[in-house]
Amino acid sequence: MEEIRDTVSQGRGGTRRVRISDLAEALGLTKSTVSRALNNYADIAPETRRRVAEMAAQMGYAPMPYAQAVRTGRVRALGLVLELDAPDRYGPFLADFLGGITQEATLEGWTLTVASSNSREEMEATVTRLLQEHKVDGFILPRTMVEDPRVDFLRAKHVPFVLFGRVGHGKPDPGLSWYDVDGAEAMRAAVARLAALGHKRIGFVGPSAAYNFAVLRREGYQAGLAEAGISFDPALEIMEVSDRAGGAQAARDLLDLPQPPTAIVYATDATALGAYDVARERGLRIGRELSVISYDGIPEGRMIDPPLTSFAVDSRHAGERLAALLIAQLRGADPAGLQELVVARLEPGGSDGPPPSVS
Amino acid sequence: MEEIRDTVSQGRGGTRRVRISDLAEALGLTKSTVSRALNNYADIAPETRRRVAEMAAQMGYAPMPYAQAVRTGRVRALGLVLELDAPDRYGPFLADFLGGITQEATLEGWTLTVASSNSREEMEATVTRLLQEHKVDGFILPRTMVEDPRVDFLRAKHVPFVLFGRVGHGKPDPGLSWYDVDGAEAMRAAVARLAALGHKRIGFVGPSAAYNFAVLRREGYQAGLAEAGISFDPALEIMEVSDRAGGAQAARDLLDLPQPPTAIVYATDATALGAYDVARERGLRIGRELSVISYDGIPEGRMIDPPLTSFAVDSRHAGERLAALLIAQLRGADPAGLQELVVARLEPGGSDGPPPSVS
Repeated sequence: MEEIRDTVSQGRGGTRRVRISDLAEALGLTKSTVSRALNNYADIAPETRRRVAEMAAQMGYAPMPYAQAVRTGRVRALGLVLELDAPDRYGPFLADFLGGITQEATLEGWTLTVASSNSREEMEATVTRLLQEHKVDGFILPRTMVEDPRVDFLRAKHVPFVLFGRVGHGKPDPGLSWYDVDGAEAMRAAVARLAALGHKRIGFVGPSAAYNFAVLRREGYQAGLAEAGISFDPALEIMEVSDRAGGAQAARDLLDLPQPPTAIVYATDATALGAYDVARERGLRIGRELSVISYDGIPEGRMIDPPLTSFAVDSRHAGERLAALLIAQLRGADPAGLQELVVARLEPGGSDGPPPSVS
Repeated sequence: MEEIRDTVSQGRGGTRRVRISDLAEALGLTKSTVSRALNNYADIAPETRRRVAEMAAQMGYAPMPYAQAVRTGRVRALGLVLELDAPDRYGPFLADFLGGITQEATLEGWTLTVASSNSREEMEATVTRLLQEHKVDGFILPRTMVEDPRVDFLRAKHVPFVLFGRVGHGKPDPGLSWYDVDGAEAMRAAVARLAALGHKRIGFVGPSAAYNFAVLRREGYQAGLAEAGISFDPALEIMEVSDRAGGAQAARDLLDLPQPPTAIVYATDATALGAYDVARERGLRIGRELSVISYDGIPEGRMIDPPLTSFAVDSRHAGERLAALLIAQLRGADPAGLQELVVARLEPGGSDGPPPSVS
């Protein structure tokens, strides 16, 4: 660790360290303005920030991180607590998601602190510790619940955060900052696509309705039915399905109905793969005797035969935008103005086609 | 951020903050001993550490992280720089790996700072920045190369680090700390298993020999051949294969040889899945006309038909041990004593069987 000590002592020894007061004097600004400009606060005009940054570079100013943290109350670190009890452990997208967060954070001069928890209690203990130890300034909260205990917990502590997903059935408190992909619209479009192919009996398989995305995707499915003039049949809707085996069982249950569906919309690709297992069991061809459309765009869905028609999410972009929204909030922007809703991109495969003609 | 300020000011205001000097006086120890005990330095006897920890709890001592960092030169943070140009983006194991690191770090009172890079230049810039900003005390380096530029870079800066994998063809400088899974032994065992089934022509498909694990697994393959009394045929060994499409092309090339193999050992599951694609193309049954064994234990390998016989790696355990080894080093242990080699666990599937009888 000699290098670190050298870095600190260089500033203190021989050539005197350039201080914020030196920059302030050279620029004819107050120390507070210079400090806020260096930290990119929203209340400092861009032109002033540019002037300060140029003078800092010219005079060789380098911040002392600890001192800066004490002064600003910021350590320039975003926090992410992974929930290890999440059913799919974030699937194959975690590298893209972390890549997005960290690349955006780096561009802005911030870093990412990652922790994990096995339960809500552990999550709260971990968050509390990260704050007490000044390891994190604010949090990115992945995978939101309809009623998300993390929201009340962090609000009570006055800790900034941004949600990946909404809360409250898609109508969150307008004071919350969030980024979400419009899963309801994707499910509506999936039903519209199937209805246009001629399907009249369309099932839906979704995860626990405690997850906000599950509720929204179910609403989208029902909206799609209404739009297509198909009346909603509760027997065709199965919730609480979170993995491939559950997706297979849901397909069996739906196909065993007196009036089975000819198509199933799955809320997640991981569960939709179960329909392929059941099709193999029963000698049905996916895309012919049974159509399937789902959501996520996992690599496995593109490699299975026939490829899964799915609405794909850009996890890298999600990570980038969540980092950007949280950093904006930490620099003083009002969270009430920091919401983004993007659309999922349809990736057509071979898993959906016209219904088998009644013979 | 009010809560953070409150936390700090509580210590300074009303009830006076308990200091290290208070603990030292109560225990009859020097401040330095108390400080080193609180930071779990290896040169303090376990009994002393226990006494200090108990007194700290009893008197309500809580460290001031910034002050502590200035004093110890430590921020109690491990660093991990994900390489976004890695061919498989760490596959589906990243959540388990991060879960292992963060759970172990939390147990010891440390945290994890994650960054990412798209190139070697960006990696070095990111590492330098994390050190200068005192965001990280040491690094976990995933996916080692035979000649890994990160090793020289960090050594020159006197920054502690632990390798996930070895360097130098498996014979790293004994002063380096590392954790590795014995891929050579797994590949040797794969060949032994196939030879015992009766295979005489066994191919090998591996990634770039710039990766240390690729070299070791190839050596294990060749050692397995020698052990089984099968002479090595360079035509049966294909390197530089990193994805499923490449694995498929390698299978085609091997099967098109005048004397094709009846079995192929793949260094990674992701590439082995390509053999299934070629088997479908050519009407071969995997496990009958073509046997396949590989390494990693990815979930997809267990779901494909027939399931892939593979040597599985415990990514959670890898993360835990890497964190433990790095923390031990940061607390003063000699890296020369911090090496761990574990074995991969065979998960038999249906992808390997006796060779087709010559008719």
